[in-house]
Amino acid sequence: MLEVLASSYIVYIVWKGDKNMVDLAFEEPFKVRQKIREEKYKRPTAGLCRGYAQGNLVILPKSLAYDFLLFAHRNPKPCPILEVTDVGEKELKTIAENSDITTDIPKYRIYKKGELEGEYLNIKDYWREDFVSFVLGCSFTFESALLDEGIHIRHIENKSNVAMYKTNIQCKTAGVFSGPMVVSMRPIHVDNIVKTIQITSKYPKVHGAPVHIGNPSLIGIEDIYNPDFGDPVEIKENEVPIFWACGVTPQAVAMNVKPEIMITHAPGYMFITDVKNNQLSEL
Amino acid sequence: MLEVLASSYIVYIVWKGDKNMVDLAFEEPFKVRQKIREEKYKRPTAGLCRGYAQGNLVILPKSLAYDFLLFAHRNPKPCPILEVTDVGEKELKTIAENSDITTDIPKYRIYKKGELEGEYLNIKDYWREDFVSFVLGCSFTFESALLDEGIHIRHIENKSNVAMYKTNIQCKTAGVFSGPMVVSMRPIHVDNIVKTIQITSKYPKVHGAPVHIGNPSLIGIEDIYNPDFGDPVEIKENEVPIFWACGVTPQAVAMNVKPEIMITHAPGYMFITDVKNNQLSEL
Repeated sequence: MLEVLASSYIVYIVWKGDKNMVDLAFEEPFKVRQKIREEKYKRPTAGLCRGYAQGNLVILPKSLAYDFLLFAHRNPKPCPILEVTDVGEKELKTIAENSDITTDIPKYRIYKKGELEGEYLNIKDYWREDFVSFVLGCSFTFESALLDEGIHIRHIENKSNVAMYKTNIQCKTAGVFSGPMVVSMRPIHVDNIVKTIQITSKYPKVHGAPVHIGNPSLIGIEDIYNPDFGDPVEIKENEVPIFWACGVTPQAVAMNVKPEIMITHAPGYMFITDVKNNQLSEL
Repeated sequence: MLEVLASSYIVYIVWKGDKNMVDLAFEEPFKVRQKIREEKYKRPTAGLCRGYAQGNLVILPKSLAYDFLLFAHRNPKPCPILEVTDVGEKELKTIAENSDITTDIPKYRIYKKGELEGEYLNIKDYWREDFVSFVLGCSFTFESALLDEGIHIRHIENKSNVAMYKTNIQCKTAGVFSGPMVVSMRPIHVDNIVKTIQITSKYPKVHGAPVHIGNPSLIGIEDIYNPDFGDPVEIKENEVPIFWACGVTPQAVAMNVKPEIMITHAPGYMFITDVKNNQLSEL
Protein backbone atom coordinates (compact mmCIF):
# COMPACT_ATOMS: atom_id res chain seq x y z
CA MET A 1 0.00 0.00 0.00
CA LEU A 2 2.76 2.35 1.00
CA GLU A 3 4.50 1.40 -2.22
CA VAL A 4 1.42 2.18 -4.30
CA LEU A 5 0.93 5.48 -2.55
CA ALA A 6 4.55 6.35 -3.01
CA SER A 7 4.50 5.50 -6.69
CA SER A 8 1.23 7.39 -7.24
CA TYR A 9 2.78 10.32 -5.50
CA ILE A 10 5.78 10.14 -7.78
CA VAL A 11 3.54 9.90 -10.84
CA TYR A 12 1.60 12.88 -9.55
CA ILE A 13 4.76 14.90 -9.02
CA VAL A 14 6.06 13.99 -12.47
CA TRP A 15 2.72 14.77 -14.10
CA LYS A 16 2.32 17.98 -12.13
CA GLY A 17 5.90 18.92 -12.88
CA ASP A 18 5.56 18.13 -16.56
CA LYS A 19 2.25 19.94 -16.90
CA ASN A 20 3.77 22.99 -15.25
CA MET A 21 6.76 22.75 -17.57
CA VAL A 22 4.60 22.27 -20.65
CA ASP A 23 2.55 25.34 -19.70
CA LEU A 24 5.63 27.46 -19.18
CA ALA A 25 7.43 26.04 -22.21
CA PHE A 26 5.07 27.97 -24.46
CA GLU A 27 4.49 30.96 -22.20
CA GLU A 28 5.59 34.54 -22.93
CA PRO A 29 8.84 35.57 -21.17
CA PHE A 30 7.29 38.50 -19.25
CA LYS A 31 4.68 36.19 -17.73
CA VAL A 32 7.30 33.68 -16.59
CA ARG A 33 9.49 36.48 -15.20
CA GLN A 34 6.39 37.63 -13.26
CA LYS A 35 5.92 34.14 -11.77
CA ILE A 36 9.60 34.05 -10.84
CA ARG A 37 9.33 37.55 -9.33
CA GLU A 38 6.44 36.37 -7.14
CA GLU A 39 8.55 33.33 -6.19
CA LYS A 40 5.91 30.97 -7.60
CA TYR A 41 8.53 29.38 -9.85
CA LYS A 42 11.84 28.44 -8.19
CA ARG A 43 13.32 25.75 -10.47
CA PRO A 44 15.92 25.68 -13.27
CA THR A 45 14.82 27.50 -16.42
CA ALA A 46 15.89 25.03 -19.16
CA GLY A 47 12.97 24.38 -21.49
CA LEU A 48 10.93 27.45 -20.46
CA CYS A 49 9.67 29.99 -23.02
CA ARG A 50 10.71 27.96 -26.06
CA GLY A 51 12.26 30.06 -28.78
CA TYR A 52 13.46 32.82 -26.44
CA ALA A 53 17.07 33.35 -25.40
CA GLN A 54 18.16 32.91 -21.80
CA GLY A 55 21.18 34.62 -20.31
CA ASN A 56 23.92 34.36 -17.70
CA LEU A 57 24.12 37.13 -15.09
CA VAL A 58 27.12 38.89 -13.60
CA ILE A 59 26.59 41.90 -11.32
CA LEU A 60 29.65 43.89 -10.26
CA PRO A 61 30.28 47.29 -8.66
CA LYS A 62 30.92 50.13 -11.13
CA SER A 63 34.59 50.26 -10.06
CA LEU A 64 35.13 46.91 -11.84
CA ALA A 65 32.73 47.47 -14.75
CA TYR A 66 35.19 48.97 -17.26
CA ASP A 67 37.71 46.15 -16.92
CA PHE A 68 34.92 43.57 -17.10
CA LEU A 69 33.35 45.15 -20.20
CA LEU A 70 36.77 45.32 -21.84
CA PHE A 71 37.42 41.67 -20.89
CA ALA A 72 34.11 40.69 -22.52
CA HIS A 73 34.95 42.74 -25.62
CA ARG A 74 38.36 41.05 -25.92
CA ASN A 75 36.93 37.58 -25.30
CA PRO A 76 33.61 37.58 -27.17
CA LYS A 77 33.37 33.79 -27.51
CA PRO A 78 33.15 33.02 -23.78
CA CYS A 79 31.59 36.44 -22.95
CA PRO A 80 28.96 37.38 -25.55
CA ILE A 81 27.23 40.36 -23.95
CA LEU A 82 23.51 40.74 -24.58
CA GLU A 83 23.07 43.83 -22.39
CA VAL A 84 24.88 46.02 -19.88
CA THR A 85 22.67 48.15 -17.62
CA ASP A 86 23.30 51.73 -16.66
CA VAL A 87 24.80 52.10 -13.18
CA GLY A 88 22.18 51.31 -10.51
CA GLU A 89 19.52 50.44 -13.13
CA LYS A 90 17.49 47.29 -12.35
CA GLU A 91 15.65 46.98 -15.67
CA LEU A 92 17.20 45.25 -18.68
CA LYS A 93 15.67 47.82 -21.01
CA THR A 94 16.73 46.35 -24.32
CA ILE A 95 16.35 42.62 -23.84
CA ALA A 96 13.58 42.43 -21.22
CA GLU A 97 11.08 45.26 -20.90
CA ASN A 98 9.77 45.92 -17.38
CA SER A 99 12.13 43.33 -15.96
CA ASP A 100 13.75 43.65 -12.53
CA ILE A 101 17.15 42.06 -12.20
CA THR A 102 16.79 41.86 -8.40
CA THR A 103 13.81 39.48 -8.59
CA ASP A 104 13.44 37.92 -12.04
CA ILE A 105 15.89 35.04 -11.68
CA PRO A 106 14.76 31.99 -9.67
CA LYS A 107 18.03 31.57 -7.80
CA TYR A 108 20.98 33.93 -7.25
CA ARG A 109 24.45 33.44 -5.82
CA ILE A 110 26.29 36.09 -3.86
CA TYR A 111 30.06 35.90 -3.71
CA LYS A 112 32.15 38.03 -1.36
CA LYS A 113 35.88 38.23 -1.97
CA GLY A 114 35.55 35.19 -4.27
CA GLU A 115 33.79 33.00 -1.68
CA LEU A 116 30.18 31.84 -2.14
CA GLU A 117 28.20 33.48 0.64
CA GLY A 118 24.85 31.95 -0.18
CA GLU A 119 22.00 31.33 -2.60
CA TYR A 120 18.93 33.59 -2.63
CA LEU A 121 15.49 33.73 -4.27
CA ASN A 122 15.92 37.48 -4.79
CA ILE A 123 18.58 40.10 -4.12
CA LYS A 124 16.34 43.04 -3.18
CA ASP A 125 18.06 43.49 0.18
CA TYR A 126 21.53 43.36 -1.36
CA TRP A 127 21.01 45.88 -4.16
CA ARG A 128 23.41 48.82 -4.36
CA GLU A 129 23.22 51.99 -6.41
CA ASP A 130 26.72 51.36 -7.80
CA PHE A 131 25.85 47.95 -9.31
CA VAL A 132 26.17 47.24 -13.04
CA SER A 133 24.45 44.13 -14.44
CA PHE A 134 25.86 42.19 -17.38
CA VAL A 135 23.65 39.61 -19.13
CA LEU A 136 25.59 37.24 -21.37
CA GLY A 137 24.29 34.88 -24.06
CA CYS A 138 23.98 31.20 -23.14
CA SER A 139 24.32 27.95 -25.06
CA PHE A 140 20.60 27.10 -24.72
CA THR A 141 20.11 29.15 -27.90
CA PHE A 142 22.46 27.17 -30.12
CA GLU A 143 21.40 23.88 -28.50
CA SER A 144 17.86 24.68 -29.51
CA ALA A 145 19.03 25.32 -33.09
CA LEU A 146 20.94 21.99 -33.12
CA LEU A 147 17.90 20.09 -31.81
CA ASP A 148 15.74 21.70 -34.51
CA GLU A 149 18.10 20.20 -37.11
CA GLY A 150 17.80 16.73 -35.58
CA ILE A 151 21.20 16.71 -33.88
CA HIS A 152 21.10 14.81 -30.59
CA ILE A 153 22.53 16.43 -27.46
CA ARG A 154 23.27 13.74 -24.93
CA HIS A 155 23.26 15.74 -21.69
CA ILE A 156 19.78 17.03 -22.56
CA GLU A 157 18.58 13.47 -23.26
CA ASN A 158 20.18 12.43 -19.95
CA LYS A 159 18.55 15.41 -18.19
CA SER A 160 21.99 16.18 -16.75
CA ASN A 161 24.09 19.36 -16.76
CA VAL A 162 26.53 19.91 -19.62
CA ALA A 163 30.14 18.82 -18.95
CA MET A 164 32.49 21.81 -18.47
CA TYR A 165 36.28 21.96 -18.25
CA LYS A 166 39.02 24.45 -17.48
CA THR A 167 41.41 24.58 -20.45
CA ASN A 168 44.95 25.75 -21.20
CA ILE A 169 43.49 28.40 -23.56
CA GLN A 170 44.29 31.73 -21.90
CA CYS A 171 41.73 34.49 -22.27
CA LYS A 172 43.03 37.90 -23.27
CA THR A 173 43.68 39.92 -20.14
CA ALA A 174 41.80 43.20 -19.51
CA GLY A 175 42.83 45.26 -16.51
CA VAL A 176 42.44 43.12 -13.38
CA PHE A 177 40.68 40.28 -15.21
CA SER A 178 42.60 37.30 -16.60
CA GLY A 179 42.41 33.52 -16.57
CA PRO A 180 41.80 30.38 -18.59
CA MET A 181 38.79 29.77 -20.83
CA VAL A 182 36.19 27.32 -19.55
CA VAL A 183 34.59 25.19 -22.28
CA SER A 184 31.50 23.00 -22.50
CA MET A 185 31.62 19.67 -24.36
CA ARG A 186 29.00 17.86 -26.41
CA PRO A 187 29.74 14.50 -28.14
CA ILE A 188 28.60 14.70 -31.78
CA HIS A 189 28.39 11.89 -34.33
CA VAL A 190 31.12 12.20 -36.95
CA ASP A 191 28.48 12.53 -39.71
CA ASN A 192 27.09 15.66 -38.02
CA ILE A 193 30.30 17.59 -37.35
CA VAL A 194 30.04 19.86 -40.38
CA LYS A 195 26.38 20.65 -39.77
CA THR A 196 27.07 21.31 -36.08
CA ILE A 197 29.80 23.80 -36.94
CA GLN A 198 27.68 25.50 -39.57
CA ILE A 199 24.70 25.90 -37.25
CA THR A 200 26.60 27.15 -34.20
CA SER A 201 28.70 29.53 -36.34
CA LYS A 202 25.49 31.42 -37.06
CA TYR A 203 25.18 32.33 -33.37
CA PRO A 204 28.25 34.43 -32.45
CA LYS A 205 26.25 36.13 -29.67
CA VAL A 206 25.80 32.83 -27.85
CA HIS A 207 29.37 31.41 -28.00
CA GLY A 208 29.26 30.71 -31.76
CA ALA A 209 31.49 28.18 -33.49
CA PRO A 210 33.38 25.58 -31.45
CA VAL A 211 36.84 26.44 -30.10
CA HIS A 212 38.15 22.88 -30.45
CA ILE A 213 37.21 19.57 -32.01
CA GLY A 214 38.49 16.12 -31.19
CA ASN A 215 41.49 16.00 -28.87
CA PRO A 216 40.84 17.16 -25.28
CA SER A 217 44.53 16.90 -24.32
CA LEU A 218 45.45 19.59 -26.88
CA ILE A 219 43.46 22.14 -24.86
CA GLY A 220 44.70 20.89 -21.50
CA ILE A 221 41.89 18.54 -20.54
CA GLU A 222 43.39 15.44 -18.91
CA ASP A 223 40.34 13.32 -18.17
CA ILE A 224 37.27 13.89 -20.34
CA TYR A 225 35.20 11.80 -17.91
CA ASN A 226 36.07 14.06 -15.00
CA PRO A 227 34.73 17.55 -15.83
CA ASP A 228 35.54 20.53 -13.62
CA PHE A 229 31.89 21.61 -13.57
CA GLY A 230 28.62 19.85 -14.53
CA ASP A 231 28.19 16.14 -15.19
CA PRO A 232 30.29 13.69 -17.25
CA VAL A 233 28.72 12.37 -20.44
CA GLU A 234 29.48 9.24 -22.47
CA ILE A 235 31.28 9.57 -25.82
CA LYS A 236 30.11 6.67 -28.00
CA GLU A 237 31.76 5.00 -31.00
CA ASN A 238 31.99 7.30 -34.03
CA GLU A 239 31.37 10.33 -31.86
CA VAL A 240 33.78 13.21 -31.42
CA PRO A 241 33.93 15.56 -28.42
CA ILE A 242 33.27 19.13 -29.57
CA PHE A 243 34.15 22.06 -27.31
CA TRP A 244 32.53 25.48 -27.10
CA ALA A 245 33.57 28.56 -25.11
CA CYS A 246 31.40 28.60 -21.99
CA GLY A 247 29.62 31.35 -20.07
CA VAL A 248 31.12 30.07 -16.83
CA THR A 249 34.41 31.68 -17.99
CA PRO A 250 33.58 35.29 -17.01
CA GLN A 251 32.32 34.16 -13.58
CA ALA A 252 35.47 32.10 -13.01
CA VAL A 253 37.67 34.97 -14.14
CA ALA A 254 35.80 37.51 -12.00
CA MET A 255 36.19 35.18 -9.02
CA ASN A 256 39.97 35.23 -9.51
CA VAL A 257 40.17 38.89 -8.56
CA LYS A 258 38.12 38.23 -5.41
CA PRO A 259 35.87 41.26 -5.86
CA GLU A 260 34.43 42.71 -2.67
CA ILE A 261 31.02 41.58 -4.01
CA MET A 262 29.77 39.78 -7.12
CA ILE A 263 26.27 38.45 -7.76
CA THR A 264 25.46 35.80 -10.39
CA HIS A 265 22.60 33.46 -11.30
CA ALA A 266 22.84 29.96 -9.81
CA PRO A 267 23.88 27.44 -12.50
CA GLY A 268 20.84 26.46 -14.57
CA TYR A 269 18.68 29.25 -13.11
CA MET A 270 18.95 31.74 -15.96
CA PHE A 271 17.50 35.12 -16.89
CA ILE A 272 14.75 34.71 -19.52
CA THR A 273 14.85 37.49 -22.13
CA ASP A 274 12.33 38.81 -24.66
CA VAL A 275 14.87 38.18 -27.44
CA LYS A 276 14.00 35.38 -29.84
CA ASN A 277 16.79 32.91 -30.50
CA ASN A 278 16.47 33.69 -34.20
CA GLN A 279 17.28 37.35 -33.52
CA LEU A 280 20.70 36.25 -32.25
CA SER A 281 21.68 34.51 -35.48
CA GLU A 282 23.75 36.14 -38.20
CA LEU A 283 23.35 35.41 -41.89
CA MET B 1 56.19 75.52 -73.90
CA LEU B 2 55.04 76.38 -70.46
CA GLU B 3 51.86 74.50 -71.25
CA VAL B 4 53.76 71.41 -72.34
CA LEU B 5 55.96 71.55 -69.29
CA ALA B 6 52.95 71.95 -67.11
CA SER B 7 51.12 69.05 -68.70
CA SER B 8 54.24 66.84 -68.58
CA TYR B 9 54.59 67.73 -64.98
CA ILE B 10 50.98 66.73 -64.34
CA VAL B 11 51.50 63.46 -66.22
CA TYR B 12 54.62 62.88 -64.16
CA ILE B 13 52.78 63.51 -60.93
CA VAL B 14 49.94 61.22 -61.93
CA TRP B 15 52.33 58.49 -63.05
CA LYS B 16 54.53 58.89 -60.03
CA GLY B 17 51.47 58.93 -57.81
CA ASP B 18 49.95 55.90 -59.45
CA LYS B 19 53.19 53.92 -59.36
CA ASN B 20 53.58 54.73 -55.69
CA MET B 21 49.98 53.67 -55.11
CA VAL B 22 50.38 50.48 -57.12
CA ASP B 23 53.49 49.57 -55.12
CA LEU B 24 51.75 50.19 -51.83
CA ALA B 25 48.49 48.58 -52.95
CA PHE B 26 50.15 45.18 -52.72
CA GLU B 27 52.53 45.92 -49.85
CA GLU B 28 52.36 44.33 -46.37
CA PRO B 29 50.66 46.53 -43.73
CA PHE B 30 53.69 46.67 -41.40
CA LYS B 31 55.86 48.05 -44.22
CA VAL B 32 53.34 50.76 -45.08
CA ARG B 33 52.93 51.64 -41.40
CA GLN B 34 56.73 52.00 -41.28
CA LYS B 35 56.69 54.41 -44.24
CA ILE B 36 53.93 56.41 -42.58
CA ARG B 37 55.86 56.41 -39.29
CA GLU B 38 58.90 57.85 -41.08
CA GLU B 39 56.59 60.43 -42.68
CA LYS B 40 57.51 59.21 -46.17
CA TYR B 41 53.83 58.61 -46.92
CA LYS B 42 51.42 61.42 -46.02
CA ARG B 43 48.38 60.83 -48.23
CA PRO B 44 44.95 59.20 -47.80
CA THR B 45 45.11 55.43 -47.32
CA ALA B 46 42.27 54.23 -49.60
CA GLY B 47 43.58 51.51 -51.90
CA LEU B 48 46.68 50.70 -49.85
CA CYS B 49 47.47 47.14 -48.68
CA ARG B 50 44.66 45.51 -50.66
CA GLY B 51 42.84 42.82 -48.73
CA TYR B 52 43.66 44.28 -45.31
CA ALA B 53 41.18 46.11 -43.09
CA GLN B 54 41.65 49.78 -42.27
CA GLY B 55 40.23 51.42 -39.17
CA ASN B 56 38.90 54.66 -37.70
CA LEU B 57 40.69 56.03 -34.63
CA VAL B 58 39.30 57.64 -31.50
CA ILE B 59 41.65 58.41 -28.59
CA LEU B 60 40.09 59.57 -25.31
CA PRO B 61 41.28 59.97 -21.72
CA LYS B 62 40.57 56.97 -19.46
CA SER B 63 37.94 58.99 -17.59
CA LEU B 64 35.68 58.79 -20.68
CA ALA B 65 36.67 55.28 -21.81
CA TYR B 66 33.98 53.28 -19.97
CA ASP B 67 31.12 55.37 -21.31
CA PHE B 68 32.61 55.27 -24.82
CA LEU B 69 33.13 51.49 -24.74
CA LEU B 70 29.57 51.03 -23.48
CA PHE B 71 28.31 53.37 -26.23
CA ALA B 72 30.12 51.26 -28.83
CA HIS B 73 28.74 48.07 -27.32
CA ARG B 74 25.18 49.44 -27.42
CA ASN B 75 25.59 50.80 -30.98
CA PRO B 76 27.63 48.13 -32.76
CA LYS B 77 26.53 49.11 -36.28
CA PRO B 78 28.06 52.61 -36.27
CA CYS B 79 30.78 51.64 -33.73
CA PRO B 80 32.21 48.20 -34.56
CA ILE B 81 35.29 48.01 -32.32
CA LEU B 82 38.31 46.18 -33.71
CA GLU B 83 40.57 46.86 -30.70
CA VAL B 84 40.76 48.85 -27.49
CA THR B 85 44.25 49.40 -26.07
CA ASP B 86 45.23 49.16 -22.44
CA VAL B 87 45.52 52.57 -20.76
CA GLY B 88 48.64 54.38 -21.99
CA GLU B 89 49.54 51.58 -24.43
CA LYS B 90 50.64 52.76 -27.90
CA GLU B 91 50.71 49.38 -29.66
CA LEU B 92 47.58 47.82 -31.15
CA LYS B 93 48.70 44.37 -30.02
CA THR B 94 45.93 42.30 -31.56
CA ILE B 95 45.29 43.95 -34.92
CA ALA B 96 48.72 45.48 -35.71
CA GLU B 97 51.85 43.98 -34.20
CA ASN B 98 54.66 46.44 -33.42
CA SER B 99 52.45 49.34 -34.40
CA ASP B 100 52.62 52.75 -32.72
CA ILE B 101 49.38 54.68 -32.63
CA THR B 102 51.24 57.98 -32.14
CA THR B 103 52.96 57.74 -35.55
CA ASP B 104 51.33 55.14 -37.80
CA ILE B 105 48.51 57.25 -39.23
CA PRO B 106 49.38 59.77 -41.97
CA LYS B 107 47.25 62.57 -40.55
CA TYR B 108 45.71 63.12 -37.12
CA ARG B 109 43.20 65.63 -35.80
CA ILE B 110 43.27 66.97 -32.27
CA TYR B 111 40.05 68.33 -30.81
CA LYS B 112 39.94 70.28 -27.56
CA LYS B 113 36.54 70.82 -25.92
CA GLY B 114 34.94 69.79 -29.23
CA GLU B 115 36.86 72.32 -31.37
CA LEU B 116 39.38 71.23 -34.00
CA GLU B 117 42.76 72.45 -32.80
CA GLY B 118 44.80 71.25 -35.75
CA GLU B 119 46.02 68.46 -38.01
CA TYR B 120 49.31 66.69 -37.32
CA LEU B 121 51.59 64.12 -39.00
CA ASN B 122 52.16 62.46 -35.62
CA ILE B 123 50.97 62.92 -32.05
CA LYS B 124 54.17 62.01 -30.21
CA ASP B 125 54.29 65.34 -28.37
CA TYR B 126 50.64 65.11 -27.35
CA TRP B 127 50.66 61.58 -25.93
CA ARG B 128 49.43 61.08 -22.36
CA GLU B 129 49.69 58.08 -20.08
CA ASP B 130 45.92 58.16 -19.44
CA PHE B 131 44.98 57.79 -23.14
CA VAL B 132 42.93 54.84 -24.42
CA SER B 133 42.84 54.19 -28.19
CA PHE B 134 39.80 52.73 -29.92
CA VAL B 135 40.16 51.44 -33.49
CA LEU B 136 36.82 50.89 -35.23
CA GLY B 137 36.06 48.98 -38.41
CA CYS B 138 35.58 50.99 -41.60
CA SER B 139 33.49 50.57 -44.73
CA PHE B 140 36.53 50.04 -46.98
CA THR B 141 36.24 46.34 -46.04
CA PHE B 142 32.68 45.82 -47.27
CA GLU B 143 33.26 48.09 -50.26
CA SER B 144 36.10 45.83 -51.27
CA ALA B 145 33.78 42.80 -50.95
CA LEU B 146 31.13 44.57 -53.09
CA LEU B 147 33.69 45.46 -55.78
CA ASP B 148 34.89 41.83 -55.83
CA GLU B 149 31.33 40.80 -56.70
CA GLY B 150 31.14 43.29 -59.56
CA ILE B 151 28.95 45.84 -57.79
CA HIS B 152 29.85 49.38 -58.81
CA ILE B 153 30.44 52.02 -56.14
CA ARG B 154 30.04 55.44 -57.68
CA HIS B 155 32.04 57.58 -55.24
CA ILE B 156 35.04 55.28 -55.76
CA GLU B 157 34.66 55.56 -59.54
CA ASN B 158 34.38 59.34 -59.08
CA LYS B 159 37.43 59.33 -56.79
CA SER B 160 35.35 61.38 -54.34
CA ASN B 161 34.54 60.89 -50.65
CA VAL B 162 31.42 58.92 -49.73
CA ALA B 163 28.29 61.03 -49.03
CA MET B 164 27.40 61.10 -45.30
CA TYR B 165 24.30 62.41 -43.52
CA LYS B 166 23.07 63.03 -40.00
CA THR B 167 19.80 61.11 -39.50
CA ASN B 168 16.85 61.11 -37.12
CA ILE B 169 17.90 57.64 -35.91
CA GLN B 170 18.95 58.16 -32.29
CA CYS B 171 21.84 56.06 -31.02
CA LYS B 172 21.35 54.34 -27.68
CA THR B 173 22.75 56.58 -24.95
CA ALA B 174 25.62 55.40 -22.74
CA GLY B 175 26.67 57.62 -19.85
CA VAL B 176 27.64 61.02 -21.24
CA PHE B 177 27.49 59.88 -24.88
CA SER B 178 24.36 60.32 -26.99
CA GLY B 179 23.36 61.63 -30.39
CA PRO B 180 22.06 60.79 -33.85
CA MET B 181 23.49 58.13 -36.12
CA VAL B 182 25.50 59.30 -39.12
CA VAL B 183 25.06 57.17 -42.24
CA SER B 184 26.91 56.81 -45.52
CA MET B 185 24.99 56.39 -48.80
CA ARG B 186 25.79 54.43 -51.93
CA PRO B 187 23.40 54.33 -54.94
CA ILE B 188 22.90 50.70 -56.00
CA HIS B 189 21.14 49.39 -59.12
CA VAL B 190 17.81 47.80 -58.23
CA ASP B 191 19.00 44.44 -59.63
CA ASN B 192 21.85 44.38 -57.10
CA ILE B 193 20.00 45.28 -53.90
CA VAL B 194 19.63 41.72 -52.64
CA LYS B 195 23.25 40.84 -53.37
CA THR B 196 24.42 44.06 -51.72
CA ILE B 197 22.50 43.27 -48.54
CA GLN B 198 23.72 39.69 -48.50
CA ILE B 199 27.36 40.68 -48.92
CA THR B 200 27.42 43.49 -46.38
CA SER B 201 25.46 41.41 -43.84
CA LYS B 202 28.46 39.11 -43.68
CA TYR B 203 30.59 41.94 -42.24
CA PRO B 204 29.01 42.96 -38.91
CA LYS B 205 32.41 44.18 -37.67
CA VAL B 206 32.54 46.83 -40.40
CA HIS B 207 29.02 48.30 -40.16
CA GLY B 208 27.30 45.20 -41.61
CA ALA B 209 23.87 45.26 -43.26
CA PRO B 210 22.32 48.59 -44.31
CA VAL B 211 20.20 50.52 -41.81
CA HIS B 212 17.83 51.88 -44.46
CA ILE B 213 16.97 51.41 -48.12
CA GLY B 214 15.17 53.76 -50.45
CA ASN B 215 13.54 56.77 -48.80
CA PRO B 216 15.96 59.33 -47.30
CA SER B 217 13.15 61.39 -45.74
CA LEU B 218 12.13 58.46 -43.53
CA ILE B 219 15.45 58.72 -41.71
CA GLY B 220 15.42 62.50 -41.57
CA ILE B 221 17.50 63.33 -44.64
CA GLU B 222 15.95 66.33 -46.39
CA ASP B 223 18.22 66.80 -49.39
CA ILE B 224 20.08 63.76 -50.66
CA TYR B 225 22.25 66.00 -52.86
CA ASN B 226 23.41 68.02 -49.89
CA PRO B 227 25.28 65.63 -47.57
CA ASP B 228 26.45 66.75 -44.11
CA PHE B 229 29.92 65.31 -44.72
CA GLY B 230 31.76 64.08 -47.84
CA ASP B 231 30.71 64.68 -51.44
CA PRO B 232 27.29 64.39 -53.14
CA VAL B 233 26.87 61.57 -55.63
CA GLU B 234 24.41 61.14 -58.49
CA ILE B 235 21.55 58.62 -58.14
CA LYS B 236 20.74 57.38 -61.64
CA GLU B 237 17.57 55.85 -63.06
CA ASN B 238 16.79 52.41 -61.57
CA GLU B 239 19.18 53.04 -58.71
CA VAL B 240 18.17 53.15 -55.06
CA PRO B 241 20.04 54.99 -52.29
CA ILE B 242 21.22 52.50 -49.66
CA PHE B 243 22.32 53.73 -46.24
CA TRP B 244 24.85 52.19 -43.85
CA ALA B 245 25.77 53.16 -40.28
CA CYS B 246 28.95 55.23 -40.52
CA GLY B 247 32.13 55.39 -38.43
CA VAL B 248 31.82 59.16 -38.26
CA THR B 249 29.02 58.58 -35.70
CA PRO B 250 31.25 57.91 -32.67
CA GLN B 251 33.43 60.93 -33.46
CA ALA B 252 30.34 63.15 -33.83
CA VAL B 253 28.87 61.82 -30.61
CA ALA B 254 32.15 62.21 -28.70
CA MET B 255 32.38 65.78 -29.96
CA ASN B 256 28.95 66.51 -28.44
CA VAL B 257 30.31 66.10 -24.92
CA LYS B 258 33.19 68.48 -25.71
CA PRO B 259 35.86 66.30 -24.10
CA GLU B 260 38.87 68.14 -22.74
CA ILE B 261 40.86 66.34 -25.47
CA MET B 262 40.06 63.84 -28.23
CA ILE B 263 42.36 62.66 -31.03
CA THR B 264 41.12 61.06 -34.26
CA HIS B 265 42.46 60.21 -37.71
CA ALA B 266 41.82 62.86 -40.38
CA PRO B 267 39.01 61.71 -42.73
CA GLY B 268 40.43 59.27 -45.28
CA TYR B 269 43.75 58.92 -43.45
CA MET B 270 43.07 55.58 -41.75
CA PHE B 271 44.96 53.12 -39.57
CA ILE B 272 46.05 50.09 -41.64
CA THR B 273 45.72 46.82 -39.70
CA ASP B 274 47.21 43.34 -40.13
CA VAL B 275 43.68 41.91 -40.19
CA LYS B 276 42.54 40.52 -43.54
CA ASN B 277 39.12 41.69 -44.68
CA ASN B 278 38.08 38.03 -44.89
CA GLN B 279 38.80 37.58 -41.20
CA LEU B 280 36.09 40.13 -40.45
CA SER B 281 33.36 38.21 -42.25
CA GLU B 282 30.93 35.88 -40.50
CA LEU B 283 29.49 32.74 -42.08
